[in-house]
Amino acid sequence: MLDQALETYGKSKAYPFHMPGHKRRNMGISDPYQVDITEIYGFDNLHDPHGYLLEAMEHLQRLYGSEHSYMLVGGSTAGNLAAVFAAVDQGQELIIGRNSHRSVYNGAYLRRCRLHYLYPRPYGDASFSGEILPEDVEEALCRYPESRGVFITSPTYEGVMSDVSKIAEICHRHGVPLIVDAAHGAHLGFAPCFPPSPVKEGADLVIMSLHKTLPSLTQTAVLHLQGHRISRESCERFLAIFQSSSPSYVLMDSIVKCVRYLEEEGARAFSRFAGLLTDFYEKSGNLEHLRVLRTEGRDPSKIVISTAGAGMTGEELSRWLRETEALELEMSAGDYALAMTSIMDSPQGFERLLAALMQLDRQLSASKGQMHVSEEAKDLRAGNAAGRKMEAEQVLDLWEAQDSEEEEMLLDRARGFIAAGQVAIYPPGIPLIVPGERITEEQIGQIKKAQTERLAVNGLKYKEGRWYLPVVKIQNMS
Amino acid sequence: MLDQALETYGKSKAYPFHMPGHKRRNMGISDPYQVDITEIYGFDNLHDPHGYLLEAMEHLQRLYGSEHSYMLVGGSTAGNLAAVFAAVDQGQELIIGRNSHRSVYNGAYLRRCRLHYLYPRPYGDASFSGEILPEDVEEALCRYPESRGVFITSPTYEGVMSDVSKIAEICHRHGVPLIVDAAHGAHLGFAPCFPPSPVKEGADLVIMSLHKTLPSLTQTAVLHLQGHRISRESCERFLAIFQSSSPSYVLMDSIVKCVRYLEEEGARAFSRFAGLLTDFYEKSGNLEHLRVLRTEGRDPSKIVISTAGAGMTGEELSRWLRETEALELEMSAGDYALAMTSIMDSPQGFERLLAALMQLDRQLSASKGQMHVSEEAKDLRAGNAAGRKMEAEQVLDLWEAQDSEEEEMLLDRARGFIAAGQVAIYPPGIPLIVPGERITEEQIGQIKKAQTERLAVNGLKYKEGRWYLPVVKIQNMS
Repeated sequence: MLDQALETYGKSKAYPFHMPGHKRRNMGISDPYQVDITEIYGFDNLHDPHGYLLEAMEHLQRLYGSEHSYMLVGGSTAGNLAAVFAAVDQGQELIIGRNSHRSVYNGAYLRRCRLHYLYPRPYGDASFSGEILPEDVEEALCRYPESRGVFITSPTYEGVMSDVSKIAEICHRHGVPLIVDAAHGAHLGFAPCFPPSPVKEGADLVIMSLHKTLPSLTQTAVLHLQGHRISRESCERFLAIFQSSSPSYVLMDSIVKCVRYLEEEGARAFSRFAGLLTDFYEKSGNLEHLRVLRTEGRDPSKIVISTAGAGMTGEELSRWLRETEALELEMSAGDYALAMTSIMDSPQGFERLLAALMQLDRQLSASKGQMHVSEEAKDLRAGNAAGRKMEAEQVLDLWEAQDSEEEEMLLDRARGFIAAGQVAIYPPGIPLIVPGERITEEQIGQIKKAQTERLAVNGLKYKEGRWYLPVVKIQNMS
Repeated sequence: MLDQALETYGKSKAYPFHMPGHKRRNMGISDPYQVDITEIYGFDNLHDPHGYLLEAMEHLQRLYGSEHSYMLVGGSTAGNLAAVFAAVDQGQELIIGRNSHRSVYNGAYLRRCRLHYLYPRPYGDASFSGEILPEDVEEALCRYPESRGVFITSPTYEGVMSDVSKIAEICHRHGVPLIVDAAHGAHLGFAPCFPPSPVKEGADLVIMSLHKTLPSLTQTAVLHLQGHRISRESCERFLAIFQSSSPSYVLMDSIVKCVRYLEEEGARAFSRFAGLLTDFYEKSGNLEHLRVLRTEGRDPSKIVISTAGAGMTGEELSRWLRETEALELEMSAGDYALAMTSIMDSPQGFERLLAALMQLDRQLSASKGQMHVSEEAKDLRAGNAAGRKMEAEQVLDLWEAQDSEEEEMLLDRARGFIAAGQVAIYPPGIPLIVPGERITEEQIGQIKKAQTERLAVNGLKYKEGRWYLPVVKIQNMS
């Protein structure tokens, strides 16, 4: 049963290099049932705060230097949905990063937006997406002048930062707001070794998961509103629609405790954390086969370990660390694995990770010849990460395609049909095909190549030895 | 600060006759941070469950005798939104109880439904809404044959049950699904003294808050799907849209622990609870001025204490119980107050409530002449509770009116304008005016009467001594 497994994992020696950012350290809630109440007398109302909850939001504002900050109990998902609704009207055009989280796509689906895409650039030779360039935003806004907003992700899951400050300046010159999904960036701006917070860089709306990188419980997040391009009224209206009318006081309590910790201990904690990271990056520079990625243009708290030169996959590295050293990473895919760190990590945790990587690295030099990633797969990933060449004709809007009757089409025969679902290759998971696009020969080729290279392809169905993907059913014309 | 207030309340002697149903008893989560993880290896995925979470859902299915049950971490709000989307397509017609929770209205807004309303009947002379009659559902379905679904609330906040079994039969005869918001009914069907569960009475979708009446943490809920009128695919698709992609394992753990408790202890706990309730209703029959409402057609776990004959308001009763006896009720309004009970209530809790009511009742006989509720106010409330005579011309659809530019109109001059917001009188809180309706003289009269009687009217704004309400702005025709 789930609860026994959770207890066992909680009590095990497994060290969590994964979210949430509290790293299983109790921040002061000794009994969740004791503090789990409802909106009784004196305990305020999240959707119309005047007391304790208003005070908590004011602390968030002070901490982040924002004009308005809303506590979220539905995660960044609720923030992203509300942000799309607050930023654009029904049916309007919106420019989004192709690498947006699915909640951004879902917001656009519900809002029936016409979408235009920004394709992230490669990040060196890594197989995950890089930044979104300001000039690409400029180009998109000129090409699609009816667009009413721009929605990008910064930092990404792997910590890649875009130049929010320049992009915001471009958006505002075109008279549209910039929304930044900074779900992975709630800790930014608190110490000099981290990139600045998008809140301070001119974005109009910024969504942050508190649980991902800070010591707060999972599903807690914050939406920051800056300036007057988007109104408080619409933010509040849509947050009240997309969030529970019985918000959890346990989750809200954990936000309050997280904010207090940052107010009281933040400076010390971040400086200690920065020291541990600097030390880790320095010492891991000695690895011969495994490689810890440089942090240029990236948030250093997301440690990316490349296995490209080590003759093993990211999954193999991850499994080895779990089984041999009881180190649980955040994710692994293709030729890398990701260790998420936070101010709650201990020196011992970093030491264990470093020692384990050193040990594996030595073993690798002794025994060569394990699996390796082909040049073709690397090319494929780089192409996916950039995505530009996969640009396709958008025949239907996303919502139209998703709401159409669909049928399953053999991959080999799908060319020319209109996609009814998303298809993405992992890594990096950026959609190769988006609903409403006419499927091209090139896309089918990419999918097949990915299968040959044993990359994970999401959005396909396997039946009796053959691969299918959902397409919009062509209606009988008779 | 919130956290200190929560701790103080948790440790106080205040007895909670309010939600959540665990009544602050710890069900086995000693450290929420220990079990708060993310979708790491082996811990399944709420939006595509195959392991522990699937197992947890199967336990829910077995417990409720449902065909499919989905765990929710976004409360019944997420369930209601997803239910509207799964049941009807964009822009389709939907029949809902006028007394629906705002999340049902919000779902209809997002789905751009054309709404038709079912008006609940009075519940005796109580000032809250009664049941929705099967014949009214039949009539609505005949009058609006394009409707694609019926959405009612049973039980209501005050525990009023509608005849789900007959209503389901009528809906199915008309070829449409019945959705039941049973947020307040997760405990139904577990003991003979409670009304049956809507899951067993033919409803196609049933949404239940687990935290309201059972020992589970706030924001936990379940969506049950029965039969094939609504597809699993669309339920799953929309739940994944409206819920966090980082669902809280603390909340899910509390669901698992709640289900296990019911499996292992449920029979004993419910029989003990039924005994306590029977005893309470019997002994409280001796009250002379205060009156504990009969439970005919109602869920007895929701104890309604009428102050109509006691010369005091529900708020005054509630304050007296809080300040004198440290008993915290769920709500109070007008001429009644509501005590929510659950299987986690103790005999001592019931004794304290009974003793307090007895004591107050004796004091009341000694000192007469306190505030009383006028006959006019009672009439007004009964009218509101029924609502039928307030039926108005629907000029715009709900979404159209809500998305229109609005202006504030003096209440006295609002006649003939189209409402842009909801106006509701408490109790019972059922909307008197819904966005899109043309405001009538009679509605304005009702609002003024409510103000004279000092009932709470939501949806108005007070500025410089005058009352305003939002109406759709009339566009300049030039």
